[in-house]
Amino acid sequence: MKHYLSVNDIDSLPMWVSEAITLKQNPTAYKDLGEQKTICLLFFSNSLRTRLSTQKAAMNLGMDVMVMNFGSEGWQLEFEDGVTMDQGKAEHIKEAAQVVSQYCDVVAIRAFAGLKDKEKDEAEVVLNGFKQHASIPVVNMESSVGHPLQALADAITVKENAITAKPKIVLSWAPHPRALPHAVPNSFIEMMKLQDAEFVITHPEGYELNPKITAGCTIEYDQAKAMENVDFVYAKNWSSYSNYGAILDTENNWMITQEKLGSAKFMHCLPVRRNVVVEDAVLDGSQSLVLEQANNRTFAAQIVLQKILESL
Amino acid sequence: MKHYLSVNDIDSLPMWVSEAITLKQNPTAYKDLGEQKTICLLFFSNSLRTRLSTQKAAMNLGMDVMVMNFGSEGWQLEFEDGVTMDQGKAEHIKEAAQVVSQYCDVVAIRAFAGLKDKEKDEAEVVLNGFKQHASIPVVNMESSVGHPLQALADAITVKENAITAKPKIVLSWAPHPRALPHAVPNSFIEMMKLQDAEFVITHPEGYELNPKITAGCTIEYDQAKAMENVDFVYAKNWSSYSNYGAILDTENNWMITQEKLGSAKFMHCLPVRRNVVVEDAVLDGSQSLVLEQANNRTFAAQIVLQKILESL
Amino acid sequence: MKHYLSVNDIDSLPMWVSEAITLKQNPTAYKDLGEQKTICLLFFSNSLRTRLSTQKAAMNLGMDVMVMNFGSEGWQLEFEDGVTMDQGKAEHIKEAAQVVSQYCDVVAIRAFAGLKDKEKDEAEVVLNGFKQHASIPVVNMESSVGHPLQALADAITVKENAITAKPKIVLSWAPHPRALPHAVPNSFIEMMKLQDAEFVITHPEGYELNPKITAGCTIEYDQAKAMENVDFVYAKNWSSYSNYGAILDTENNWMITQEKLGSAKFMHCLPVRRNVVVEDAVLDGSQSLVLEQANNRTFAAQIVLQKILESL
Repeated sequence: MKHYLSVNDIDSLPMWVSEAITLKQNPTAYKDLGEQKTICLLFFSNSLRTRLSTQKAAMNLGMDVMVMNFGSEGWQLEFEDGVTMDQGKAEHIKEAAQVVSQYCDVVAIRAFAGLKDKEKDEAEVVLNGFKQHASIPVVNMESSVGHPLQALADAITVKENAITAKPKIVLSWAPHPRALPHAVPNSFIEMMKLQDAEFVITHPEGYELNPKITAGCTIEYDQAKAMENVDFVYAKNWSSYSNYGAILDTENNWMITQEKLGSAKFMHCLPVRRNVVVEDAVLDGSQSLVLEQANNRTFAAQIVLQKILESL
Repeated sequence: MKHYLSVNDIDSLPMWVSEAITLKQNPTAYKDLGEQKTICLLFFSNSLRTRLSTQKAAMNLGMDVMVMNFGSEGWQLEFEDGVTMDQGKAEHIKEAAQVVSQYCDVVAIRAFAGLKDKEKDEAEVVLNGFKQHASIPVVNMESSVGHPLQALADAITVKENAITAKPKIVLSWAPHPRALPHAVPNSFIEMMKLQDAEFVITHPEGYELNPKITAGCTIEYDQAKAMENVDFVYAKNWSSYSNYGAILDTENNWMITQEKLGSAKFMHCLPVRRNVVVEDAVLDGSQSLVLEQANNRTFAAQIVLQKILESL
Repeated sequence: MKHYLSVNDIDSLPMWVSEAITLKQNPTAYKDLGEQKTICLLFFSNSLRTRLSTQKAAMNLGMDVMVMNFGSEGWQLEFEDGVTMDQGKAEHIKEAAQVVSQYCDVVAIRAFAGLKDKEKDEAEVVLNGFKQHASIPVVNMESSVGHPLQALADAITVKENAITAKPKIVLSWAPHPRALPHAVPNSFIEMMKLQDAEFVITHPEGYELNPKITAGCTIEYDQAKAMENVDFVYAKNWSSYSNYGAILDTENNWMITQEKLGSAKFMHCLPVRRNVVVEDAVLDGSQSLVLEQANNRTFAAQIVLQKILESL
């Protein structure tokens, strides 16, 4: 594998999940693989889990790690071709990506959607800029339209907790005070397509995600109906896709409650707004898998880095 | 030892001080102890000495280190239970502390007092939030009300420089242009209670510290009288405790001078305002121990981490 | 070698360049040299190449690395002697430099010129403050008036690409929308004096650099004439030195074009403003050495650190 940019870079999900679960028994089993190899984590957006779990994964593999907050510590980047750079941007992605490639063996990038300009967000200028110009493997630590390390951790968590071969999994929109990107639901949906599951998406009308991503998925506007006999409820807020980046009517009755959850397991990528997205009782109860998901972030990142290191 | 939250977590001060002094001869003697162990340093407040000396201590022990400026790099945390998180705070301490616990073996926290709300500061929401919800040992890198790594470094420095079995040690308030927290004097006082010393606190009236902490201590409002026959003068500014966070009348005649110091040793935790807290002549003279104190920060942190690693 | 503060700390340029070129074949050949040694990188200014390449060089040598953004993570420093520190600055360079010296074996500093006060910039208060008060070797990662790690990387790049024993090298001023410091051209000129080359400086009238630095150099105001039969064109903007920090008339016809370049090699320290300093065709063409220069930053830093480690 060259890059890990989206869920579709996984060649065999069952294999990867199985290897990750094995890895948890002995996280430093491949400590020699990363010897004399360096990963550079470039953050254009804030991060807690991704920052720490990706570092941890790299260290488990014996890699050296350099972490950089690109925005505050480096230079503002220009991504357009052919422009006269006489304004605020000091460096072009062409140079930045090629230069970074000379100091490390793998580069990982986090750059959230701005949610102002759909076309620009979908062009994934930061991630694709690095992919296009870097000469080393690029890992997506959450881009404008995808968060495939999260989705892989989610798949591991589902595998570890499923009690049937084909569980029913519902991705439910939930309320939030701020406009949030589509990266997490997008990658979760793409992951569900690789997964043996009865998968349903539920959200208020107007919150339809990119139809190219949801193509072939069951969408049910009635949350209660969607959640009948559900095994896993994955809650997540996102802003409108058609009315790009907008928060439509507040739909507080979409919050996940213990009553709605029934006996299903609860999933969320974190950070989560308590009593807005989901009530305390769920997060503090035994059906919540959110901490297992966060823990699996390390092993998802480690499997990805392992595959990349093996291909170097 | 599970946590190192305050001076009172030290089970035997003479033993710890003696081990730290031995350690200085061979700082990497226990390099194997931290192999495959990770410490995460979380900064909610600025830091120079603590940042570098705690990293250095961890590296001396062979640990992997992850450093994070929580405020600027992560998410704003909510510490109250049961709230509806529909305002600025994106993540609850319950999740943050449990998640961090999954990526490392020890977590160290720095979070200064805000000095606006005494009750809130004394509740130590950040440090105690991590203590309550993390599943791993928590180290206090300076909290609202204590700085026990500094106090341990101070105890080592006193031991190395005392020429009598029971030295006279004076903690003297000193002027400062900004309102400062009580963490350093609090922990120094608590440390003095574990120490064989003739201990006197001196400050202008109105600057009484928390009476629970100073209980049993000699308080002398006359600085000159307090400093008669003193062996060690520990200078430190703090804001008013009763009129919480206030700077009372400027008392510039409280600055420590060479004349006041006489033949005593001078101590300060740094950073120090020259010619406000203490005059140049003292800091540049041979009686100043401030650099030895800073140097001992590494070994204080290392003894603490060593005790924690041995208990894992 | 104690410090690496300027190009003049190089005892034999041909030797250093030759060792650096050899090192590229096996960058971790001296991995044992830095065992149990720590370097602290202190950034008072932003950085991409310097940040990553210096870390990489230190890791190649087996050193532990601590990176700190001094301004945002630490305390504001006072550099003047004898002042009453009752304003915004919390710590004096005397303490800061001595304290940092206790936690590491080498300290590297980046602090750009402010371009407001020539005398202050030329006093190099940050770099010289550390040099004066630190007890460990100090490395200049770009100061107010010099960038000797860049100049060493440039010398390596020239050596690798020169096809004649004494190439013609032109340092050409180029336009830029912001006022830039003199550090890079200064160190490049100093390096050229150590180099066997026909060296010419060209810039619009009014952009004369510090005459102490350009003493003995050929200065040609006619860019076209300067570039006749040139082998290497080093482009760089700088603000006025005599009218300190000013941008004089915009001289857009000074941009380096493919036509002007002819068959010469193109050099720049990066970051570079495309189509302002140099046109796309040059950077995207085969005569550009900017990425080789950036790559050589690692080996320049590594040679410097190696010399320092050997002298410890």
